[in-house]
Amino acid sequence: MARKKSTAAKTPPADIGLIGLAVMGQNLILNMADHGYTVAVYNRTSSKVDDFIASAKASEPSAGRLVGCKSLKKFVSSIKRPRKIVLLVKAGWATDATIESVVPYLEKGDIIIDGGNALWTDTIRREQELTAKGLRFIGSGVSGGETGARFGPSLMPGGSKEAWKELEPIWKAISAKVDRKTGRPIEVDTPGQVAKGGEPCTVHIGENGAGHYVKMVHNGIEYIDMQLICEAYMLMKNLLGMKPDAMSEVFAGWNEGDLDSYLIEITADILQQKDPMNKRRFLVDSVLDTAGQKGTGKWTSTSALDLGIPANAIAEAVFARCLSAIKEERVSASKQLRGPKAPRLPMSKAKAIEAIREALYCSKICAYAQGFQLMAEAAREYDWKLDFGKIAKIFRGGCIIRARFLQKITEAYKADRRLQNLMLDPYFKKALHGGQGNWRSVVTMATNAGVPIPAFSSALAYFDGYRTAVLPANLLQAQRDYFGAHTFERTDKPRGQFFHVDWPEPGRPISKS
Amino acid sequence: MARKKSTAAKTPPADIGLIGLAVMGQNLILNMADHGYTVAVYNRTSSKVDDFIASAKASEPSAGRLVGCKSLKKFVSSIKRPRKIVLLVKAGWATDATIESVVPYLEKGDIIIDGGNALWTDTIRREQELTAKGLRFIGSGVSGGETGARFGPSLMPGGSKEAWKELEPIWKAISAKVDRKTGRPIEVDTPGQVAKGGEPCTVHIGENGAGHYVKMVHNGIEYIDMQLICEAYMLMKNLLGMKPDAMSEVFAGWNEGDLDSYLIEITADILQQKDPMNKRRFLVDSVLDTAGQKGTGKWTSTSALDLGIPANAIAEAVFARCLSAIKEERVSASKQLRGPKAPRLPMSKAKAIEAIREALYCSKICAYAQGFQLMAEAAREYDWKLDFGKIAKIFRGGCIIRARFLQKITEAYKADRRLQNLMLDPYFKKALHGGQGNWRSVVTMATNAGVPIPAFSSALAYFDGYRTAVLPANLLQAQRDYFGAHTFERTDKPRGQFFHVDWPEPGRPISKS
Repeated sequence: MARKKSTAAKTPPADIGLIGLAVMGQNLILNMADHGYTVAVYNRTSSKVDDFIASAKASEPSAGRLVGCKSLKKFVSSIKRPRKIVLLVKAGWATDATIESVVPYLEKGDIIIDGGNALWTDTIRREQELTAKGLRFIGSGVSGGETGARFGPSLMPGGSKEAWKELEPIWKAISAKVDRKTGRPIEVDTPGQVAKGGEPCTVHIGENGAGHYVKMVHNGIEYIDMQLICEAYMLMKNLLGMKPDAMSEVFAGWNEGDLDSYLIEITADILQQKDPMNKRRFLVDSVLDTAGQKGTGKWTSTSALDLGIPANAIAEAVFARCLSAIKEERVSASKQLRGPKAPRLPMSKAKAIEAIREALYCSKICAYAQGFQLMAEAAREYDWKLDFGKIAKIFRGGCIIRARFLQKITEAYKADRRLQNLMLDPYFKKALHGGQGNWRSVVTMATNAGVPIPAFSSALAYFDGYRTAVLPANLLQAQRDYFGAHTFERTDKPRGQFFHVDWPEPGRPISKS
Repeated sequence: MARKKSTAAKTPPADIGLIGLAVMGQNLILNMADHGYTVAVYNRTSSKVDDFIASAKASEPSAGRLVGCKSLKKFVSSIKRPRKIVLLVKAGWATDATIESVVPYLEKGDIIIDGGNALWTDTIRREQELTAKGLRFIGSGVSGGETGARFGPSLMPGGSKEAWKELEPIWKAISAKVDRKTGRPIEVDTPGQVAKGGEPCTVHIGENGAGHYVKMVHNGIEYIDMQLICEAYMLMKNLLGMKPDAMSEVFAGWNEGDLDSYLIEITADILQQKDPMNKRRFLVDSVLDTAGQKGTGKWTSTSALDLGIPANAIAEAVFARCLSAIKEERVSASKQLRGPKAPRLPMSKAKAIEAIREALYCSKICAYAQGFQLMAEAAREYDWKLDFGKIAKIFRGGCIIRARFLQKITEAYKADRRLQNLMLDPYFKKALHGGQGNWRSVVTMATNAGVPIPAFSSALAYFDGYRTAVLPANLLQAQRDYFGAHTFERTDKPRGQFFHVDWPEPGRPISKS
């Protein structure tokens, strides 16, 4: 009895717990510890706990705030109530299994936070299941890769507002910060260092799966952002015959203007790297042109198809990776299928580079427009109240797509919360009007030279399609009525009235004999 | 006892039964009856059975072969064993519910045939469930719309070979027929009429869900086929200022050559139709430009994303329908977003029409290449042995995408069963080599004029990407290694060896302040 009393009286030491000691988990733990939080640490393979604590003690100033736990029981009892337990395990069944293993130790009101790249529908389901048990659940996107997790990620939490209130101080503390005036990220890159001031890159995204959905779309945008940069690179390489170091300079220059972003910056850096295995070569020339993918770009495209949102450029970026993967088939085809004769460049090299820059910028506007349209439709479908200004805001720091550009998107939605499409915002409209001449020139040059630019041209088709009052779908719908009696609406009748014509030969097999 | 004996001795009258009396079901029943089969007929709402039998008696020469049934028990006992029961009910839960209701009356070895547009994974599941109960299941695509069902559809059955043997005579009898020499469809359009000779448009596609998968890809191809025709129409309308009747003549002319197909033929027909509500107008000009969709194009695109097959043109066709659907948004955007000044046409009108024809043909080759690549990958994934020559063969008649072109595909796979890509077949390669100049001109003209042509340009990006030995994915994979340590392969090392570089600033937040 006495013993029990003393245990009960003792306050558990940890402010929060985290399960899963892969790199993302380790780095998020150290980030929380650096911000003054005591963190209980658990991993299914318990030797990893020892290793992690030992290595933290050797090099991390905040190692004293870590509580290594070898059992789930000890882990859970080490955390102050209501308990906050972050999971950073593999998405899918591993997440379900971990939740199942920890739930028996939890008490009413405790909160599980899933920081993995979960499919949003799984998050919706898990929240329902845990709510039924009196527990709370937050699905939080964590963006920024390993270094983001360590020094400041962009965090996209979805769940009930009252659960968010419990997590908010910690999430705000550990997230990336941007300068309140300029919107630029504030650098943090040293263990123990903490950003002073600045606006945190986290906000309550919405209910249940909203956080993971927005994280998924962020990744879909990342796919097309990268593909656009690759197409610009290919045009400079194939049409202008430029070498990696020269292109590095171009990207570094672009990084000073509208295109200023993390991905452009690392591209400039990558292109100047020498191959460590052969110092006379540039590393990029030794890298095989087959891109991998982990699924979030695919999920984004599938969701767009399901919701009926024309996010064609995002899907093209996914398909471009698929095409890159069949390397041997392409090499074989390259010897069998001829392209056009290389035409003379219709402009100077300097003008062509500037045209490519504008094509990239215009395409990027369209790609983001698609991503935000998709989020808007998902909000309607799942009854989330998404604030796109705030979402653009937290994309400004910590995450892979962080860019000066996002400040403009933040401002666009601040000026008009109900903006129908990003392309219609005055700033972006002006950019598109000003850039479309060069954009068209680049698509034309690439087309004539046989250089594949699926992202540039699909973005242009989106721009041109979106601003076209009358598309040829009248013919298509007439075809559907012809062979399938699918009916059509009329230009001179109210929407929702459907007509059918008894076509002369409704789908009859055709005689040719 | 005596009564029981006499019942047992009586042979049931029907060769086959069909559940579901919507138009497709009614027409398939009449088609079977015309071919001499006695058909038991059942519908959940039994008044429909009376109505159907009454109306058949009034006008159908084969009405005597119909056995109307008001209960499932009577329906099932009216069919000879092993019973063959065709379902033509809505895909999804309605199909499951119908199966569940009929199974209690069936006996070992009886066969259920699902003729709806089922998702192939549902078909795989249903076959497993029914096999466990000692029953057999065939998932059969039925293509050709209402008239196809009545006078000869293209039928794509998937299931066990021994189940197929039971169904084969009926399926072969009722399917569309093509001339054995020319490969052209043989016309049948009169109740009671039966095609003499000719090659039936049905073949055993493969195990379990193979038939429904191939039917789904058929529909995906139909989406892009229709979209390509619409883009050709839009170019003639917007760039060449042509009127519907003039375009009708162009399509009719195209229907005499390589593009000869059902969809081109009905397009020619549609474009010459006057508006029945306003005889001074062409009907197509009164049809609203918003296209509907029922999901199979979306499923095809999603499957391509899942299997990692670059079927970008098919997905673009689906997205084009999505964009067409937001009519009001486009009308509003058309007043806000400017396009380019219309440039002078760089060639004569006659030459431009010929260029559009070649662009359409080249794009069509790419679209079919994507569909067949997708089927090839699905065959690997699901362990089906698909014969693409035979599949192209049964597409030649009955179905919406029937075309002279499919004879060429049949021949391509006959010449080389393991053809890696349709574009590499000598006939199609020649067409692409010969047509690419005009194809590029059309994409260029449209790009410069601001006419959206997502299908033409995505097909071209596929052609150019597929024949490109080195894509820019080397840069992309370097980016992935930079921020996420995803590793890369090297051009100078064997495939499967992965490398990682300690990049100077691996994903560190960037300081700009």
